[in-house]
Amino acid sequence: MKDEVRTEPTKIAIVGYGNVGRGVKLACERNLAIHGDTILRAIISRDPVRTERRLKEDKTLYPIFHFYDSKAWSDLGIDVAILCGGSKTDLPWQGPFFAHHFNTVDSFDNHNYIPSYFDIMNLSSQPAEHTAVTSAGWDPGKFSVERVLGEAFIPGATGKGFYGLTEKGGLSQGHPDAVRRIKGVKDARQYTHAIPMAIEVAQSGADMQNFGKGDMHWREVFVILEQDTPEERTRVEEAIKTDPDYFAPYKTTVNFVKEGELSNEMPHDGVVISSGTTGKGNDALIEYKNVWASNPEATGNILVACARACHRMNLEKKFGAFTMLDIPAAQLSPYSQAKLLEERM
Amino acid sequence: MKDEVRTEPTKIAIVGYGNVGRGVKLACERNLAIHGDTILRAIISRDPVRTERRLKEDKTLYPIFHFYDSKAWSDLGIDVAILCGGSKTDLPWQGPFFAHHFNTVDSFDNHNYIPSYFDIMNLSSQPAEHTAVTSAGWDPGKFSVERVLGEAFIPGATGKGFYGLTEKGGLSQGHPDAVRRIKGVKDARQYTHAIPMAIEVAQSGADMQNFGKGDMHWREVFVILEQDTPEERTRVEEAIKTDPDYFAPYKTTVNFVKEGELSNEMPHDGVVISSGTTGKGNDALIEYKNVWASNPEATGNILVACARACHRMNLEKKFGAFTMLDIPAAQLSPYSQAKLLEERM
Repeated sequence: MKDEVRTEPTKIAIVGYGNVGRGVKLACERNLAIHGDTILRAIISRDPVRTERRLKEDKTLYPIFHFYDSKAWSDLGIDVAILCGGSKTDLPWQGPFFAHHFNTVDSFDNHNYIPSYFDIMNLSSQPAEHTAVTSAGWDPGKFSVERVLGEAFIPGATGKGFYGLTEKGGLSQGHPDAVRRIKGVKDARQYTHAIPMAIEVAQSGADMQNFGKGDMHWREVFVILEQDTPEERTRVEEAIKTDPDYFAPYKTTVNFVKEGELSNEMPHDGVVISSGTTGKGNDALIEYKNVWASNPEATGNILVACARACHRMNLEKKFGAFTMLDIPAAQLSPYSQAKLLEERM
Repeated sequence: MKDEVRTEPTKIAIVGYGNVGRGVKLACERNLAIHGDTILRAIISRDPVRTERRLKEDKTLYPIFHFYDSKAWSDLGIDVAILCGGSKTDLPWQGPFFAHHFNTVDSFDNHNYIPSYFDIMNLSSQPAEHTAVTSAGWDPGKFSVERVLGEAFIPGATGKGFYGLTEKGGLSQGHPDAVRRIKGVKDARQYTHAIPMAIEVAQSGADMQNFGKGDMHWREVFVILEQDTPEERTRVEEAIKTDPDYFAPYKTTVNFVKEGELSNEMPHDGVVISSGTTGKGNDALIEYKNVWASNPEATGNILVACARACHRMNLEKKFGAFTMLDIPAAQLSPYSQAKLLEERM
């Protein structure tokens, strides 16, 4: 057996305590209980009062530091900061800032900007001898890995992604925000549903070039209006269905519901399907499916596994930015190489 | 973007031209046609006459070298030798031998000996500044990766493997060999079938400690007898069903067929199911499924992707032995980091 880099438990800070931050906290606690190798040391927040209230709701307490109190948090001996801010307005400036100060893991998912963000995270982390794992989670992240491996193992196949395979569908983050920005909307949820026939076509390996976005998924919106009148319903439904970015390309249903009727569950799921042939035409199919009752907890779990890898890579002097495409499975596992070879191969 | 290690096409030699060797040949041809980055340069064989006959059957020709004519094959500038011999009697001595002479990729799958084989391949390859990828393929290999990642992403879950999900089932290699060793058996096939109810239990995340091997799979055997008499049928069926290693733990059906009725297709498939919870009890499920009409071609495809990674890792001076647990997805892909970040994340 080759020696592995022995590590103390990875000391983690969470930056930003929203849904994903809470998922990371729970994941740290579970990993600590089962494997003893990740430990949450601090929560860094722009609103410590609100964060403290949220922690008390969960009947837990951790040291909370103000975002700008860098004197306090820079002396904590943090191994990895997990950045849980949003990709749109938080990570573009918080990511590079913290990559200068810490090893970092984030789930940056603003697809058009992933290469630029990666570049800047690389420039920010490398001179400081830090390691930055960017765009981690289940998608982007592990689903990206499966898109790449499906192609590598079945040359000529292209991975197709479907979301919302269960009856409930998958709760989106960006889409309900777009609905909430419409005047007169008090609150909203949006569930994505895969179209089963399109999944069958993808599994068959048939050409899907003629399949538009709207042939693969449909969208289900639930809205609470500020003032629930027939005119308002007509106006808001029209505004949603004609939104060119988020809804116009899809069959969309809009349901108006009363205060208290929106679900607070956050399920999400999806599958990457790579279908093609080997040799002279033998069918080949690879499917990677995730079903999560809690999307932010799922993301939290994967971010903590990436924090374990990030810490190890940093100890091995692998500085700069990496995505999950660059991280081998063994780095994400709590187990030693000997155990993996003996029991998991 | 970080610079990637630029490589010429990876020059490949196949050692041993059986079913997997033929799968590797076809995979090299397909990757060359689509990506232009792997090229088959030589086939090294202990029986060049038979290998030439087999190549002619496929209407292709490649330079063939005798196994012991090391003068001839050591000057070819081979980047990676893909070792396609069997795990039982070929790889234990051919692996270390070729790891001394070349970078190597193999699919060693004799589970009890995987750690020892890894150790010796590491000792053989490292001083020669070679890179050896061991135990690669879909299982062990990518399925091992998924067993490890399922546990890393859902702490407390243990990956369960099922094989033979399709109606046909999965054609085994080791089991029919065991049947053929029984006196009076002329030829045989063995198909493994998963038991659907057990899959449902695995998906539910329920404890499977009380599930024996025979509760998860059953086995279907097809036999051609040397002399097909009722007495022979009874004797051979009894011998199969009482084989303590291969068949006794399973419900097994034995079918006697006539010459020419055994299928020459080599389908196989399987799924790794990791089921558990996140946070305070939210359901979490990861499934990784492969369905291959040709098992040896599937293995061939994955070995060629691993040869690409092996060559790159060697250029990066990563010497010694590695399994697929140690290889990041980006190394297995024909694409540049820039393309992966832009189009696959």
